[in-house]
Amino acid sequence: MRLTIQALDGIPRVEPGDDLAGLLIAALGGCGIALRTRDVLVVTSKIVSKAEGRYLDLGGIEPSERARELAQITRKDARLVEAVLAEATEVVRAKPNVLIVATRHGLVMANAGIDQSNLGAEDHGRRVLLLPQAPDDSARRLKERLDAHFRTAIGVVISDSVGRAWRLGTVGLGLGAAGVPALWDRRGEKDLSGRPLEVTEVGFADAVAAAAVLAMGEAAEGRPAALVRGLDWSAPVRPASALIRPRPEDLFR
Amino acid sequence: MRLTIQALDGIPRVEPGDDLAGLLIAALGGCGIALRTRDVLVVTSKIVSKAEGRYLDLGGIEPSERARELAQITRKDARLVEAVLAEATEVVRAKPNVLIVATRHGLVMANAGIDQSNLGAEDHGRRVLLLPQAPDDSARRLKERLDAHFRTAIGVVISDSVGRAWRLGTVGLGLGAAGVPALWDRRGEKDLSGRPLEVTEVGFADAVAAAAVLAMGEAAEGRPAALVRGLDWSAPVRPASALIRPRPEDLFR
Repeated sequence: MRLTIQALDGIPRVEPGDDLAGLLIAALGGCGIALRTRDVLVVTSKIVSKAEGRYLDLGGIEPSERARELAQITRKDARLVEAVLAEATEVVRAKPNVLIVATRHGLVMANAGIDQSNLGAEDHGRRVLLLPQAPDDSARRLKERLDAHFRTAIGVVISDSVGRAWRLGTVGLGLGAAGVPALWDRRGEKDLSGRPLEVTEVGFADAVAAAAVLAMGEAAEGRPAALVRGLDWSAPVRPASALIRPRPEDLFR
Repeated sequence: MRLTIQALDGIPRVEPGDDLAGLLIAALGGCGIALRTRDVLVVTSKIVSKAEGRYLDLGGIEPSERARELAQITRKDARLVEAVLAEATEVVRAKPNVLIVATRHGLVMANAGIDQSNLGAEDHGRRVLLLPQAPDDSARRLKERLDAHFRTAIGVVISDSVGRAWRLGTVGLGLGAAGVPALWDRRGEKDLSGRPLEVTEVGFADAVAAAAVLAMGEAAEGRPAALVRGLDWSAPVRPASALIRPRPEDLFR
């Protein structure tokens, strides 16, 4: 199998209310690319959030008692901590400079994935960007628009760069997905010796996101999307929410 | 940036003592590929282990008391559990059908990464395959051979498919690396607004492995290597051991 991963040039700074599908279609056109069936377009959660207007002004927040306590432990702005708690269902770890929570999406992330970078100098650190409200829905809406425009059936993955439990460094993760088996169930398949595959479920959307983020780079505002071409799969489509390990099946906590 | 990821055809079944670098050079030749500077060759840990003869015959193992206890809890073969413990420094989780340990490499993996699949029908489940003894050293030796042959300076990543703490499904991970910044320190770099990058360290070798495993597929014996072309980096070379989060800095346990 041969994959190509092309970071897309020509996506402008995204503002609340922008038609993100339209911006992607224009950027693809500028790169001379017409999408084909089984192309997967990976888009950073940051520009999805921006288009969806997921900004929050910390200036308007009154931190709760709990947020103040956690702010003292983590040495973070109590208003930011309050914003994190509003996105969280569980605090996984709080220590100096570290606040890891499980979000209501089921993601375990530092600061609930709230982004304080790359928001423009005028924001003075007061305005932060939340994750998309429902990343799978965002992916599905983008897919529908792109499918209609290109008269094809593509996949869309919404990516973010996240830390891991036992590894340093961030890698791309698939927060939202449409048109792909985000979790690829390979149970029942055999290896070359006829034994059942030891790997039975593949974190497909996460791997696609990791690959795309490699091509996009980290200072992602300029290249916040990438096209992955050459993928194939033989499994039903599933959203990225399928990748979330149910709490009772959590093998590591 | 545009990446291409090409799974390599023509790598035969690897046996203990095989010259893996020679097999890779032959396969690359068969695909008409001459390696160039900054190409990264990703090779599964499975064929590295096979070439290094990292087989273990469970028939010769006498399980300890502790292995028997854990075998009862996990419902696994006590001899396999003994083999896992011999590779482990810590048992992270033991419950029915689950045995997660920290290996002496510092990897947190199910069954210490011991592979029971794809070993040939003649093995009858008795012979298992351990991870490479020192994956960074294995990567460095392959790089030296390939660099000398192609008169260039490539990167090598040794991959495995592993599970994650809070996510279902496996993704590729970089167990060993040479010639690349396995952990890419981006501290001090600025985003487009001039603010310090929020992402400060990138799990580069892990992302490269995740991308390559996508192209290789899971029934990996036939396509156990892939060439990633088009990567660039501006950071010192670091081995994959740099990716291991030191136990005292573990944010999640």
